[in-house]
Amino acid sequence: MFENKAQNLTPIAQLGEFGLIHHLTQNFPIRQASTELAVGDDAAVIVPQDQQKIVVSTDVLVEGVHFNLGYVPLKHLGYKSVVVNLSDIAAMNATPTQILVSLAVSNRFPVEALEEIYQGISLACKHYEVDLVGGDTTSSTSGLMISITAIGWASPENIIQRKGAKPNDLLVVTGDLGAAYMGLQILEREHSVFLANPNMQPEMEGYDYILERQLKPEARTDVASILKELHITPTAMMDISDGLASEILHLSKNSEVGFRLYEEKIPMDSLTITTAEELNMNPVMAALSGGEDYELLFTISPSDFEKIKNHPDFTVIGHAVDKEQGNYMVLRGSNELSEITAQGWKHF
Amino acid sequence: MFENKAQNLTPIAQLGEFGLIHHLTQNFPIRQASTELAVGDDAAVIVPQDQQKIVVSTDVLVEGVHFNLGYVPLKHLGYKSVVVNLSDIAAMNATPTQILVSLAVSNRFPVEALEEIYQGISLACKHYEVDLVGGDTTSSTSGLMISITAIGWASPENIIQRKGAKPNDLLVVTGDLGAAYMGLQILEREHSVFLANPNMQPEMEGYDYILERQLKPEARTDVASILKELHITPTAMMDISDGLASEILHLSKNSEVGFRLYEEKIPMDSLTITTAEELNMNPVMAALSGGEDYELLFTISPSDFEKIKNHPDFTVIGHAVDKEQGNYMVLRGSNELSEITAQGWKHF
Repeated sequence: MFENKAQNLTPIAQLGEFGLIHHLTQNFPIRQASTELAVGDDAAVIVPQDQQKIVVSTDVLVEGVHFNLGYVPLKHLGYKSVVVNLSDIAAMNATPTQILVSLAVSNRFPVEALEEIYQGISLACKHYEVDLVGGDTTSSTSGLMISITAIGWASPENIIQRKGAKPNDLLVVTGDLGAAYMGLQILEREHSVFLANPNMQPEMEGYDYILERQLKPEARTDVASILKELHITPTAMMDISDGLASEILHLSKNSEVGFRLYEEKIPMDSLTITTAEELNMNPVMAALSGGEDYELLFTISPSDFEKIKNHPDFTVIGHAVDKEQGNYMVLRGSNELSEITAQGWKHF
Repeated sequence: MFENKAQNLTPIAQLGEFGLIHHLTQNFPIRQASTELAVGDDAAVIVPQDQQKIVVSTDVLVEGVHFNLGYVPLKHLGYKSVVVNLSDIAAMNATPTQILVSLAVSNRFPVEALEEIYQGISLACKHYEVDLVGGDTTSSTSGLMISITAIGWASPENIIQRKGAKPNDLLVVTGDLGAAYMGLQILEREHSVFLANPNMQPEMEGYDYILERQLKPEARTDVASILKELHITPTAMMDISDGLASEILHLSKNSEVGFRLYEEKIPMDSLTITTAEELNMNPVMAALSGGEDYELLFTISPSDFEKIKNHPDFTVIGHAVDKEQGNYMVLRGSNELSEITAQGWKHF
């Protein structure tokens, strides 16, 4: 379940609540000028930076719902739980600066397991230059739950909401889609094989990219500065956590427009496509409904097309239309339309 | 388990995640000028108010660990979960302004149960004039978990940390202590009686004050302005969530001083004392180790004594000494010393 299989595991009770928090958070340096006081008091203190606004978001990951510790290493879980939250800040076109992390864990987890989670959190803090400024660690009656709040900053003119797209605006996506979902399929397949026969070696070779997209996704915190350099201000923006279809419907609802999505334009890695074929799945469905890509989806004025058209980070995948025209995907090699429905994340 | 025992309970799946969040949060008005964008986008947007600093804290409440739904009404749980977090903001001498609420719930909870929790959250938002600006609602494999992040603001000169107490500073507490713990004892007693015989009527009469302190505590967000009016700036401050003993040790550690606490000075309501006697418990232990009082504990310069000595909200209960002299309680009616040890909250 966790990498450190040392013989002498430490029960959490041995450190106690305050000792545990101190133990887990003592090696987190402060990187942001705005962080005045981090972990260790009743609350953290953050100093606003000139004229900027605060952006704040929170997300919970629950064992058995969002992750399966049968195949998700704890360090990756810690890293990913931060990324998921930073992605929401990036989706506002803002820069993340601080996080607060709360863990609820059953006593089946030794201190060493929490250390691995915090190693992943620490790696993410380092990579994204965000500060851990607070949190809570408590027991749970069963399982593991990670709740993270992310704080970011942006100049008022840079903050982009889900509303703001106008008819004829171009629909743009970063990176490629569907890979995280196909990575999950491989992990689940190999986990089933393992459960059936623990002596079988998992066959993970050749799936590196899609496994990494699932286990160690990255938040597109780089996009805000790329867009700034290109002198592009999106008209609406969000991140793709629940699949392209669900997110298009969110933009549609908040901006009161419809969308035309071109199936053939959806960017996908070749490994996503070949893996889908191997598993008799439709790769487009992975992009539309798989989720966990943590790419950004945004709209831009048609007049910005020249600035973006050959950029390696961006793909124009469609455009906005009047609200009454609804949300449809234009199928590959035809002009047939297929209505876009929310197949996104549905936990209940 | 929840008040609305209507025949037609709504399964959460019927609304879906996004419908559920919208349904639960649609009636939350915005009260703070600093709240620019609340629930409904990837993140909330908050505008700093002139020269103020941000104070931020997070806390998790877990079913079976922090509360028992056998005797805690869901509306009270919602209210209390907000109060617990606002108390941390008040403990920095700051004013709370925004909260983010994440719920993880198993599907044994119908939509009506979540509505009751949100009714309590809404009441707390109204009472404390804070805005609900974000959150997450997800399923859990078992039980209910509420994670709240609270944001507040304070002028830089007003923020008080746990460090800062000097030898000879006076130790001051707001309100009275131990009542919430005695309320819990009554609730647990009556719950045991009920489990043994569901036809027995619970005997709650006459315990109103201590039951309210347990089920519907309040955060001392009023103290910051009282202290300002009195021209008192505490030298160190925190809230009492885990019992007076544990908190004195925190102030001691962070401020690098020791404390002398006078047993006879500890403020307790007469109902706390009589209930403790009825249950053959020591009321002082309830104050020292019971927790959940959500009063504030702070130190002031001895020169501020005159300003505070007859104030109905405050009681001077001791003073700071050199670190080497340690932390001791001076026992009632004698000069004997008893070492203060952390008997506070210990979940693991």
